[in-house]
Amino acid sequence: MPVYLDHNSTTPLDERVLATMLPYLRELYGNASSQHRYGRLTSGAVERAREQVAALVGAKSSQVVFTGGGTEANNLALRAVCGSNRSGGNVAISAIEHASLREPAFALRDDGWSVSEIPVTADGVVKVPALVEVIRDDTRLVSVMLANNETGAVQPLSEISAAAHERQIPVHTDASQAAGKIPVDFVKTGADLMTVSAHKFGGPQGIGALIVNRSLSLRPLLYGGGHEQGLRAGTHNVAAIVGFGMAAELAQSELANRARHMREIRDRIQIALQQSPEISVFAAEAERLPNTLQFGVRGCHGETLLLELDRKGFAVSSGSACHSNAHEPSHVLLAMRVEPELALTAIRVSVGMATSQQNADDFVAALNGILTQFRRTSVRAVNI
Amino acid sequence: MPVYLDHNSTTPLDERVLATMLPYLRELYGNASSQHRYGRLTSGAVERAREQVAALVGAKSSQVVFTGGGTEANNLALRAVCGSNRSGGNVAISAIEHASLREPAFALRDDGWSVSEIPVTADGVVKVPALVEVIRDDTRLVSVMLANNETGAVQPLSEISAAAHERQIPVHTDASQAAGKIPVDFVKTGADLMTVSAHKFGGPQGIGALIVNRSLSLRPLLYGGGHEQGLRAGTHNVAAIVGFGMAAELAQSELANRARHMREIRDRIQIALQQSPEISVFAAEAERLPNTLQFGVRGCHGETLLLELDRKGFAVSSGSACHSNAHEPSHVLLAMRVEPELALTAIRVSVGMATSQQNADDFVAALNGILTQFRRTSVRAVNI
Repeated sequence: MPVYLDHNSTTPLDERVLATMLPYLRELYGNASSQHRYGRLTSGAVERAREQVAALVGAKSSQVVFTGGGTEANNLALRAVCGSNRSGGNVAISAIEHASLREPAFALRDDGWSVSEIPVTADGVVKVPALVEVIRDDTRLVSVMLANNETGAVQPLSEISAAAHERQIPVHTDASQAAGKIPVDFVKTGADLMTVSAHKFGGPQGIGALIVNRSLSLRPLLYGGGHEQGLRAGTHNVAAIVGFGMAAELAQSELANRARHMREIRDRIQIALQQSPEISVFAAEAERLPNTLQFGVRGCHGETLLLELDRKGFAVSSGSACHSNAHEPSHVLLAMRVEPELALTAIRVSVGMATSQQNADDFVAALNGILTQFRRTSVRAVNI
Repeated sequence: MPVYLDHNSTTPLDERVLATMLPYLRELYGNASSQHRYGRLTSGAVERAREQVAALVGAKSSQVVFTGGGTEANNLALRAVCGSNRSGGNVAISAIEHASLREPAFALRDDGWSVSEIPVTADGVVKVPALVEVIRDDTRLVSVMLANNETGAVQPLSEISAAAHERQIPVHTDASQAAGKIPVDFVKTGADLMTVSAHKFGGPQGIGALIVNRSLSLRPLLYGGGHEQGLRAGTHNVAAIVGFGMAAELAQSELANRARHMREIRDRIQIALQQSPEISVFAAEAERLPNTLQFGVRGCHGETLLLELDRKGFAVSSGSACHSNAHEPSHVLLAMRVEPELALTAIRVSVGMATSQQNADDFVAALNGILTQFRRTSVRAVNI
């Protein structure tokens, strides 16, 4: 298998996490809502995991609403707030949000809402004056992600929340990429709603959470049996929740070591790539996630390069996996005022705990080899 | 651990299913939307599972929309149809639907919709004349489950669909309890939308599907990266989907044997219980799921009996796990015109492949022992 350099898409499941899940995939089955012993054992496990997830992000366990993943949590955040404001209004989102926030926000337009985009700097960061300029009298929610999935740029959430709260507007932040990679504190972000996803830091796919300030008036997205204090119905996915909890506990205790390792590898690749004048690193001056590096290679289509790297044994992304079939430039890079031609060349490298210095050096050598080849054979070089 | 007689709440994960999942929880990780080799391997696995699920229910794989479970599929069915009818209207649901269909239907009232309930017979079955009487000019969707989770009563879906289609009304059916226990054929049911849930027949929790007639105009519930042909966004839960597929394949090939075994055990318990004049079996005359038996014991509160059975080593339900904390009589039994006093005594036994004749006999003996004890010590007997 290729060297995996696409951890922002999904991470391998940590084997210690799988070990905690296995009993719940074998003998400890049960519906956590049942009143018999199977139900009590599984609901106990769910509640322990809720505390572990809460601890990772500085929240109370009563604030954790388990969802089927980050996408559902983002959709729920919008629905929870906007579904309770029956008169409609405006939602202000950053121009660099993930599709799982951006698309449901745009879908609110069908229900009579308006959506404003908060512009970002050339380094992909939302600044408070830009937010203030976008906010309207009828803005009911501000949503700015904690760290961008493509560039890794970290956003100044506490300042953004303060500015929104001055105007009595609640704030949502998508912390899917931040949680487990950098310190995340729900209270310090000032956010009222925060999305977390397990499979971005060694947990299983199909499980996430929305952290909620329960003083807000919120409407569920999934109705049913009154689970999660009425905010999310559906049989608890016990094994996945247990795995999410363990992944959170491990990430919390190992955060500094993980960040140090990933930053070292990421920086090693970045420094090597910056030797080539044709390579531009995006958001290079921003505070970034320690594992993320997005760059463009002038004149070389990102998808072509991705497939060539795959052939040479390196798995990277051309941006967001969720839009991997789109041949349009990334809206994130366009929002940073990167020229469309350069944006189409984007490659994202996101390293993980198993990525070694050797992997990094091999990747740089492979990339340079491909680029040399492209330069020689103009057949391959896509002039766009 | 107690003898598990609560398979309609959730089933143990079949060990053969877990075996097919494990590689996807270990070395075969990846985001199924990624373009590199990890993505191709996982998306290939997702597509194979889609075919397995489709085959179980007589659908085409292109009609399978994977969701985070049955609750999400039920919510999606309502939203998919009603979200596309911006002018509002009426939804007709049977009076015995599960909370995961009933509650989101009632929530549509906040958006200006009306909800009608289709009455059932004393055996818990929807008859066509009752449906026809409820249908209005503005009815936009009929939703009748394929088999009831409490009584096990199977509904005459093809007749219901024919009556609705005569009036150009699309039909949804919640087949969460039916799929994997009785033959289910999407085409024969005549339904346009059908809910399936993996953990009701040996698959993992947290995964389900909505089978869709794609000629309908449908709106997603979760927006994002355009997964599932635009009907359900979110990173695919690869291991769970693979497990769902394997559980479907096994259920399909073993359906007759499973039904025979479960029916034998269920009937053994029923025949023994019917010796006691104080025990009433609900929906006894209806065609029922082979594994399900719901009964009431006059004068003996269901919750009290459930907890006493748990102490004696038998895990049963007092109805739906999703409402296990409610001390109200089941809406299903009330719809069947069971007196509230008797409805409050309901106990549901749902057997599985691991349930033995010995388990059945032990259960009957334990229940009789408890009832004898209750009769002697009026302290314990709750007169309601």
